Amino acid sequence: MSQSTVTEVTVAGMTCGHCSASVTEELSALPGVTDVVVDLHPGEDSPVTITSEAPLDPAAVASAVEEAGYSVR
Amino acid sequence: MSQSTVTEVTVAGMTCGHCSASVTEELSALPGVTDVVVDLHPGEDSPVTITSEAPLDPAAVASAVEEAGYSVR
Repeated sequence: MSQSTVTEVTVAGMTCGHCSASVTEELSALPGVTDVVVDLHPGEDSPVTITSEAPLDPAAVASAVEEAGYSVR
Repeated sequence: MSQSTVTEVTVAGMTCGHCSASVTEELSALPGVTDVVVDLHPGEDSPVTITSEAPLDPAAVASAVEEAGYSVR
């Protein structure tokens, strides 16, 4: 049996591939994260899907996004 | 932010739609389960994907499958 957690967040302020790369890098560094997918909508709110081995602390997710220079809606 | 857990199990012994309906019914009754998808391979091992609001107890998943008359690999 395998188990994973899927977290969906909405990130504001990303405008290009560099933005999404920064967010992906920060989120990927969180413990247990195995995959990050950014559905970039330049200049609009963009959905981000994070897969992890266990549930993530929402505060840690928000901090990682802020570390990259953006914010969670 | 929304978070869900995806659990993948392999179930042995299912041969038809009635089998998969029984397994789906038992797994759907577990607390927090929001979706169950059986990829039926009649007479072979079949993957079952369970979506839940929080991580599931592996023993509870195995019990639910056994309750339906089948076993987790």
